[in-house]
Amino acid sequence: MIIFLPYGRRLKASKGKTLLDAALDAGVKIQSFCGGRGLCGRCRIVVRSGGENLSPPSEAEKRILSEDELSGGLRLACQAEIVSSGEVLVEVPVESQAYKQRLVAGGLETPVQLKPAVRRLVVEVRRSTLEDAESDVEVLLEALERKIGDRPTVSYEALKRVPYAIREGDWTVTVVLWMDKEIISIEPGRPNEVPYGLAVDVGTTKLAAFLVDLESGKTVATASDMNPQISYGEDVISRISYIMEGEGNLERLHRTVVDGVNVLLREACKAVGIEPSMVYDMTVVGNTAMHHIFLGISPKYVALSPYPAVVRSPVDVKAKDLGVEMNIGAYVHALPVIAGFVGADAVAGILATGIHESDEVSMLIDIGTNTEIVLGSKERLAACSCASGPAFEGAHITHGIRAVEGAIERIWIDPETLEPAYKTIGDVKPRGICGSAIVDAVAEMFKTGIIGVNGSFRSEVEAPRVRCDGGTMEFVVAWKEETSTGKDIVVTQSDVREVQLAKAAIYTGTSILMKRMGIEPLEVEKVFIAGAFGNYIDPESAQIIGMYPEIPLDRVQFVGNTAGSGARMALLSTDVRRLAEDVAKRVRYLELGADPDFQKEFLKATHLPHMELKRFPNVVRFLKGKARSGDKGLKSL
Amino acid sequence: MIIFLPYGRRLKASKGKTLLDAALDAGVKIQSFCGGRGLCGRCRIVVRSGGENLSPPSEAEKRILSEDELSGGLRLACQAEIVSSGEVLVEVPVESQAYKQRLVAGGLETPVQLKPAVRRLVVEVRRSTLEDAESDVEVLLEALERKIGDRPTVSYEALKRVPYAIREGDWTVTVVLWMDKEIISIEPGRPNEVPYGLAVDVGTTKLAAFLVDLESGKTVATASDMNPQISYGEDVISRISYIMEGEGNLERLHRTVVDGVNVLLREACKAVGIEPSMVYDMTVVGNTAMHHIFLGISPKYVALSPYPAVVRSPVDVKAKDLGVEMNIGAYVHALPVIAGFVGADAVAGILATGIHESDEVSMLIDIGTNTEIVLGSKERLAACSCASGPAFEGAHITHGIRAVEGAIERIWIDPETLEPAYKTIGDVKPRGICGSAIVDAVAEMFKTGIIGVNGSFRSEVEAPRVRCDGGTMEFVVAWKEETSTGKDIVVTQSDVREVQLAKAAIYTGTSILMKRMGIEPLEVEKVFIAGAFGNYIDPESAQIIGMYPEIPLDRVQFVGNTAGSGARMALLSTDVRRLAEDVAKRVRYLELGADPDFQKEFLKATHLPHMELKRFPNVVRFLKGKARSGDKGLKSL
Repeated sequence: MIIFLPYGRRLKASKGKTLLDAALDAGVKIQSFCGGRGLCGRCRIVVRSGGENLSPPSEAEKRILSEDELSGGLRLACQAEIVSSGEVLVEVPVESQAYKQRLVAGGLETPVQLKPAVRRLVVEVRRSTLEDAESDVEVLLEALERKIGDRPTVSYEALKRVPYAIREGDWTVTVVLWMDKEIISIEPGRPNEVPYGLAVDVGTTKLAAFLVDLESGKTVATASDMNPQISYGEDVISRISYIMEGEGNLERLHRTVVDGVNVLLREACKAVGIEPSMVYDMTVVGNTAMHHIFLGISPKYVALSPYPAVVRSPVDVKAKDLGVEMNIGAYVHALPVIAGFVGADAVAGILATGIHESDEVSMLIDIGTNTEIVLGSKERLAACSCASGPAFEGAHITHGIRAVEGAIERIWIDPETLEPAYKTIGDVKPRGICGSAIVDAVAEMFKTGIIGVNGSFRSEVEAPRVRCDGGTMEFVVAWKEETSTGKDIVVTQSDVREVQLAKAAIYTGTSILMKRMGIEPLEVEKVFIAGAFGNYIDPESAQIIGMYPEIPLDRVQFVGNTAGSGARMALLSTDVRRLAEDVAKRVRYLELGADPDFQKEFLKATHLPHMELKRFPNVVRFLKGKARSGDKGLKSL
Repeated sequence: MIIFLPYGRRLKASKGKTLLDAALDAGVKIQSFCGGRGLCGRCRIVVRSGGENLSPPSEAEKRILSEDELSGGLRLACQAEIVSSGEVLVEVPVESQAYKQRLVAGGLETPVQLKPAVRRLVVEVRRSTLEDAESDVEVLLEALERKIGDRPTVSYEALKRVPYAIREGDWTVTVVLWMDKEIISIEPGRPNEVPYGLAVDVGTTKLAAFLVDLESGKTVATASDMNPQISYGEDVISRISYIMEGEGNLERLHRTVVDGVNVLLREACKAVGIEPSMVYDMTVVGNTAMHHIFLGISPKYVALSPYPAVVRSPVDVKAKDLGVEMNIGAYVHALPVIAGFVGADAVAGILATGIHESDEVSMLIDIGTNTEIVLGSKERLAACSCASGPAFEGAHITHGIRAVEGAIERIWIDPETLEPAYKTIGDVKPRGICGSAIVDAVAEMFKTGIIGVNGSFRSEVEAPRVRCDGGTMEFVVAWKEETSTGKDIVVTQSDVREVQLAKAAIYTGTSILMKRMGIEPLEVEKVFIAGAFGNYIDPESAQIIGMYPEIPLDRVQFVGNTAGSGARMALLSTDVRRLAEDVAKRVRYLELGADPDFQKEFLKATHLPHMELKRFPNVVRFLKGKARSGDKGLKSL
């Protein structure tokens, strides 16, 4: 028997299972970033008794946990395997409990006129007689031809249902048409069932799904979760490497993400009380690798020069071929991609922000594990991509968590006292720091001189919050008395380094893209910062750390999950799908790796805000104004 | 341990298995018509020792086997279940051994110009570069467009292979195109692999398959076997009833026949040393119920007035959706059907015989468990169907067997001595009688006065070969000393009755069809007798018993398996497919059941050759001439 505290859930012990799997079976959600590979150390649990019924600590545990922790009963749930059937009392500490992530559902979205790819039609067919025993399909198509002026094809799945539907419906049936070209479903009579669609954003780290009533156009439910592929690598490149390692790995990753989407599909359907079989259409966006893997296509060559996509044009494929468990006749529409590293999510972002039809020059920065940048106007568009890593999603940060309840989402530091203030999601006790606050923290630490232009903690700063722990400098955001974990929440030197690398990657992308297009920062009339990570990055903080060139802040707008918005727009209208295809063809792709200046630019951009301070005159002026009396760090800028 | 004699095959006993299944496992083929339901009594075996390890005789065995037989160790293999693991010595008598059936592969066939639905094309694609990293699909379609002037779609299965094929083939690939509309397969380089196709005739009783080289048009292998659906009913109606009995029964029958086709597919491929994945196309014909079940479509309403087909137009469906294990991207093309009881096999027969383009009036009689009749010329065509039963395939006949080695295929009876002569397939000792000889036997027995116009044995005939066994009259065709079974081979009164019913059904169909079209027998310039049962029915014997109206014999031609021929023609040419669709629309279907004269006509037709002798003036004249001296039976006609 395994008993989980504080939930009180009980479960019969199954030998060979890890505590992580057992917890899942018991409905207890434990955090895990690395997918149970003993790498991230997020699934710490305390074994209160019965430790002898578990496997001894693994190498991974010995690496991640201290001897004191191990002797105190601390284990990694993913490593501790049940070896005998005795009782084990497991406590899941609050910082290891997985919470539902907050999702930015409402990304900026350009309104579209409803014209979905599927529609239902009630059809009355003539009865066949002994004198004229015409086939069921023939009488159905005859009637449809009278209604829509054309004869669609009949999908194999619908074909098999035709004779039953016609007779159970007493010669009245309701068909669901796809693109007016194919009957994908047939039901007897006039069931009062609206067809639904699901717009899906397959992020490297996160999945988001939007369930839409296709007759009203309304989003009736949203669902989101981690991309379960994360077990096989945190970023695009490591997943592609995994695929290249073995024969069945592509199929495994494909199944994993499709299963994840199926979970969201069921969850969204459950929320509004419908069956997944009532979902007749799906649009999918994602970066090219995610897009390809979702479709079961190998992204192997996407990772090899010249980084071509396997397919750029939109792909329509039967849901059942992919294993998506919606209506059996339904199609999945994958939006087009621009290049190997600028995917359908960027196309969706363009559609959502309307960059492609604007007279003004706009820039879209879609921040994720991979960040895509699009720059241009209706005249011309170019895009590039940069590997910014998952820091802004809370990974690789000491106390980083996703945007869940208890996550610190804003941080301010008093320039005189160096005492911080913060705000948590849900206004509860903090349990960690999410992406937006990590950007804030670095910006504020820089503004207040705690760290210097190179990102290092400045030795001359002395304050109760600044300390050295085991040789590493850190800033205490919240004392353990204030937190729900009973531990201090800190930002360490290495956390600052992660942010520097991430922001440098993004800055380099924006600056090279602008240089190649001959566009100066001040010519950019609009900057859209997008991301599906659930928290609003403060444009000022982002500019202070130098995430993008200096552009007046009133031109910068956080627009949320535009990938999801674009997917939803394409779900609502086939005109948008055509537009997406057109836009994807128009965008010129720039390969950053091919740019001779890349390395140099990247290195310079790791500084705060940048090694060439003249690129950030206003930030410098602002910082000088903010500088604490007596502190020479900022004054000397 | 189960030991099978005379094969000497040994097999570990599995409790709960029947001896029939055990034999199959041991590679010992035992005859079974009813599919192991204890109905046909064909799977008799002798238990030499170890009977205590088997279940006691079932009710079915007690019904079919005499007490003497049971006490002598005779059992039905399908009923005797293994109950313990002791040794059982089983002898399979020669008449229970299943032989490979002779197949009429070479049906009449109108030559067609080769224009298959699939073709392969070698395509050289341009390499993508860092400056222009176009997608794999785009460079492929560009190259194809230059070659064929159009851009086909890419099947999902092919899409997944595109990146590998392009690179493994060093930017040269071979694609297989379906209808020039879809890339269904892609291979690297220029493999020297011809695409093959399989033409399949799904008969109620038999399956026949023809493997065709689609570049030469040559049939390279044929394969045939029983339709394994026979376990679920011998005729169309009993299978439809089975489907109506339970939810999963349609799926079960569908899987069963598809599995049967897969066996033939593998067998044909093995014969020429190719992989089933090299088979890229399949055409299928069958009566409407077989056609529907093969496609997984319920034929339920085909059996209910007004007997409509679910679909009449040709159906193209992915092989993988059906479970056909050829190339994963391949399509199966099911030819169109004419009506609920005149199927794609009749359409194929029309194409093969060319009735639809002839100036002369022709009649096609395609004899099977269900017999289809088509009458007309290029001006007009009509068709009907009749349930003639499986007698001509050797079923329901005391010593009836299929056209396998050792089957008597011709019988003659000396009018003076009443001594028979016969010919067996393979010129070996006889083991039973197949369909053609059954027709001969009845015709000869009638000609020689052994039976009268009503089909009854005539009491006044005395001869060593004519005897009464257990109250039933019978004619001994072969004495046990001559046979390989060690038993007399006879034709009984009930065998004659079976033939009378079968031929009456066919005659009624032909005569009502002619009446409804206003065509007299002498206006019919050509009679094509078709069938897939492996033996050539003698047109004279068939006319003597009155299987069809009296038409000069030089106009009658046995044309073999025209269903298979038509399927092969459609495999060779998409023009033929279009023609088939056109022909299927043109043929008027006549529902015999709706004809007021049906019952009366049928009853009159059960006589030999017919109750109204004036319909057969030449037969009567011929018979009178043949009559034995002193016998008043025929003289009195």
